[in-house]
Amino acid sequence: MHSINLSTLQSLLPEAKFQNTNSIDSVSFTGLTSLSLASTNEISFVASKTFVNEAKASKARLLVVSEDMVDSLSEKALIIVPKVELATAKIIRQFFPEKQPTGKHSTQVAIDPTAKIGSNTDIGHFVTIGKDSVIGNDCIIEDGVKIGDRVHIGDGSRIGKNCVFFDDTIVGKRFIVFGNSSFGGDGFGFVFAEGKHNKIPQVGRVVIGDDVEVGSNCTIDRGALTDTTVGNGCKFDNMVHIAHNCKVGDHVIIAGQSGLAGSVTLGNYVIIGGACAISDHITLVEGTIIAGGSSLRTSPKTKDVYVGWDLGLTFPEFQKYRVNIKNIVNLNKWLKRIENIEKKVGIETKES
Amino acid sequence: MHSINLSTLQSLLPEAKFQNTNSIDSVSFTGLTSLSLASTNEISFVASKTFVNEAKASKARLLVVSEDMVDSLSEKALIIVPKVELATAKIIRQFFPEKQPTGKHSTQVAIDPTAKIGSNTDIGHFVTIGKDSVIGNDCIIEDGVKIGDRVHIGDGSRIGKNCVFFDDTIVGKRFIVFGNSSFGGDGFGFVFAEGKHNKIPQVGRVVIGDDVEVGSNCTIDRGALTDTTVGNGCKFDNMVHIAHNCKVGDHVIIAGQSGLAGSVTLGNYVIIGGACAISDHITLVEGTIIAGGSSLRTSPKTKDVYVGWDLGLTFPEFQKYRVNIKNIVNLNKWLKRIENIEKKVGIETKES
Amino acid sequence: MHSINLSTLQSLLPEAKFQNTNSIDSVSFTGLTSLSLASTNEISFVASKTFVNEAKASKARLLVVSEDMVDSLSEKALIIVPKVELATAKIIRQFFPEKQPTGKHSTQVAIDPTAKIGSNTDIGHFVTIGKDSVIGNDCIIEDGVKIGDRVHIGDGSRIGKNCVFFDDTIVGKRFIVFGNSSFGGDGFGFVFAEGKHNKIPQVGRVVIGDDVEVGSNCTIDRGALTDTTVGNGCKFDNMVHIAHNCKVGDHVIIAGQSGLAGSVTLGNYVIIGGACAISDHITLVEGTIIAGGSSLRTSPKTKDVYVGWDLGLTFPEFQKYRVNIKNIVNLNKWLKRIENIEKKVGIETKES
Repeated sequence: MHSINLSTLQSLLPEAKFQNTNSIDSVSFTGLTSLSLASTNEISFVASKTFVNEAKASKARLLVVSEDMVDSLSEKALIIVPKVELATAKIIRQFFPEKQPTGKHSTQVAIDPTAKIGSNTDIGHFVTIGKDSVIGNDCIIEDGVKIGDRVHIGDGSRIGKNCVFFDDTIVGKRFIVFGNSSFGGDGFGFVFAEGKHNKIPQVGRVVIGDDVEVGSNCTIDRGALTDTTVGNGCKFDNMVHIAHNCKVGDHVIIAGQSGLAGSVTLGNYVIIGGACAISDHITLVEGTIIAGGSSLRTSPKTKDVYVGWDLGLTFPEFQKYRVNIKNIVNLNKWLKRIENIEKKVGIETKES
Repeated sequence: MHSINLSTLQSLLPEAKFQNTNSIDSVSFTGLTSLSLASTNEISFVASKTFVNEAKASKARLLVVSEDMVDSLSEKALIIVPKVELATAKIIRQFFPEKQPTGKHSTQVAIDPTAKIGSNTDIGHFVTIGKDSVIGNDCIIEDGVKIGDRVHIGDGSRIGKNCVFFDDTIVGKRFIVFGNSSFGGDGFGFVFAEGKHNKIPQVGRVVIGDDVEVGSNCTIDRGALTDTTVGNGCKFDNMVHIAHNCKVGDHVIIAGQSGLAGSVTLGNYVIIGGACAISDHITLVEGTIIAGGSSLRTSPKTKDVYVGWDLGLTFPEFQKYRVNIKNIVNLNKWLKRIENIEKKVGIETKES
Repeated sequence: MHSINLSTLQSLLPEAKFQNTNSIDSVSFTGLTSLSLASTNEISFVASKTFVNEAKASKARLLVVSEDMVDSLSEKALIIVPKVELATAKIIRQFFPEKQPTGKHSTQVAIDPTAKIGSNTDIGHFVTIGKDSVIGNDCIIEDGVKIGDRVHIGDGSRIGKNCVFFDDTIVGKRFIVFGNSSFGGDGFGFVFAEGKHNKIPQVGRVVIGDDVEVGSNCTIDRGALTDTTVGNGCKFDNMVHIAHNCKVGDHVIIAGQSGLAGSVTLGNYVIIGGACAISDHITLVEGTIIAGGSSLRTSPKTKDVYVGWDLGLTFPEFQKYRVNIKNIVNLNKWLKRIENIEKKVGIETKES
């Protein structure tokens, strides 16, 4: 961990205003942490006005805040920024710089002579790279990564330990992936005939754009005839599964343990919460949000926040649904009551 | 990718009738793709009568069709087959032949001297094979596969990169698995005593039949006392989890991210959609279908299609349920209405 | 598999009473299995009084039972114990002793010179261990494990094939993990600005207590600013996902394919069934049980058993809910009936 001072912060955050910072001019800050944990030589941040009182009590001598908090914290040394989280992220990175590639290749590797590896790219131990594969410049290929034939990995990518790339997978620039993820395995396609499930060859590829980040233990399958595609800037958490033929737009977020069945189409800026199941051939228009734990079986027509099962409910509907979950336990009693009333007022009850 | 001509297709599909194909006798076809994407030297296929108009407009000069489409497409060159998808699968495989083993062994491996490896089997880089394990003939063991002791892998199997086989796992012939799947880890069994969870040793095995295909990042656990078994011809998608003591019949399909808890019994030809959770000790009779996203907590008595939660609904019930999901948000208002009526007609309201 | 005799059992189970065992004094028992599968030289166990008749019919010549079964099985040779499953587990372990480390190091490894490896620890093939990492005594590090920098693994741990530990992960003593699990990957944290999702550096660690067992293909992510922590004695099944900043207490059970979103807090002795989704920032108090297949979006206030979606229902509520699931399919008809009654009795219907 590095330590940094005010002038470093000033050049790091040119958009920021610094207030009451004269007295801490020479302080060497040792880290950034939460308000309650920070010590005097640490920076902290105020995520929202809710935390203003906590901020006042914090030992942190320097706070990242937004303009609307300045009045309440006028006695503190402040870094005033348009977006607290973004500035905070930049400061943290300053304390914990990213590992940089050095161009070091392990000798315990198996790299096909036809494979091309860019300059300043690290190749870890027990890595394999197959025929005609191309690894860009400035990459870090960590230990145990297995890369098949004709795979392309873009410049500046970081491939985590023991990830697997099957043949023909194409990955853009600045790709990040953590451990044990698998790309380009066959899509799940069979045709039933003669009493058994016969394999439909999966000959499309996986094609991933630039600036995509994927967690640990994810799977993205190759397409059947056409490619499975993931746009630029997408971020997938751990154990996310993308089935064959999916077309994922740009800047899509998918949280942990969610999956897309085959041929799902996601517009740009879609957000899917954790533990969601999106059925095959669903389409979500740009900006649609699916709340965590939802299971979508029907394509919603419009951009909205959806929660729940089948088509899902919009968020206002869900708020009402929530209140009513416990009513369901009494439905059989309600039926009795309706029947009683019908008898009393002389309505003929038909079977319900 | 290979290119193929009419005579190759004729010997490939002896069951097919070829119509209007004289004019394309000498064409060298370069691929097979969807109706809209196909160019003149590509083959396409008509999956159902719905696509007949698209077929007429397609540039593809040769179409795979079923008998019932022939009249509508009488001006096209046709391959008439009983099962379009099956014939299509065979043609695709012709363009993209499967990798064949060549008997090549990497030298960067760790194979116990007591292990036996069949003839014409490929062993990739950084593979390990433990004591008394037996790998069949004509297998491809890809890079990074780790095989424990006393494991058997049947003839003609293809084991994907970085898969793991713990001790005593038995796999039949023509097994296919993609990346990072784990077989034979301990089942999840503990007994609570003295304030902690005490491990119950898991000493059964995993025993898998012939012609099984498993996706990437799946897990099948060894049994507690008896074996976890998977029958012949089963196909599992990515991230499928089979817990200890499950007995899976033949030709069972399980789609992505679905799991069987302990001691589940599945009859032959069961189909489980994606993202399903099957509770422990559930039994599904032959041919039962569980729709994707379902969570089954009770064994359905009869063969049917089930959807939803707990016991699930049959599909016709589900169609009605669907319509009613949005009614749930108003139940508290309905209760008020029932109470009002009761008051008006003089029925004493008991607590509901 | 070893064989064992009565005197071994007597020293193994000092808390047990042995009854009618004189006649089997010299028998060499070859295994322990279920009542129906056991042969005469095998031991079996009676899990509950329900199985007493099966026990009478069993060929097993020696049964593990609890005090309350003794009268019904007075003609059998019995091992009478306070906890049948616990005694059974101990006997099984006797037949199948755990693999013990022998201090053997493969030469096909890549271990940083600054790493420290304890005594009597096995290092498998194609293992990597990074800078300043410390592996305890008496560990088994299986083939293909990849360990980053500054990782600590406690004494007596068994790390399964192809598991991955990213930098700074700390694991206690007697840790067990099966295949392809990933520890210490970045938490899933982004801030949206300028049309894209910007990474928030994840600089906390993963810190795991003693006596924890984790299945295959699990993921535990490092914290954002503070650590993701798992207490002592926790047991996680396969494909369990623990997101950043979670605080998991001691002796927590999480079954297969369940996940904790970010910043979840679990008290000691919490039990989470399979395929559960626990939303971010949820807190579960000590001893709370979440039934399998549940999706929790609200923190329950009290210790109880919860089932279902959102807040979940308590188990008695769930029993009533179950009965009513099928009533939901008729709600639209009920609405009609309520409307008819209202018309008949002269109540003005407002929109519902």
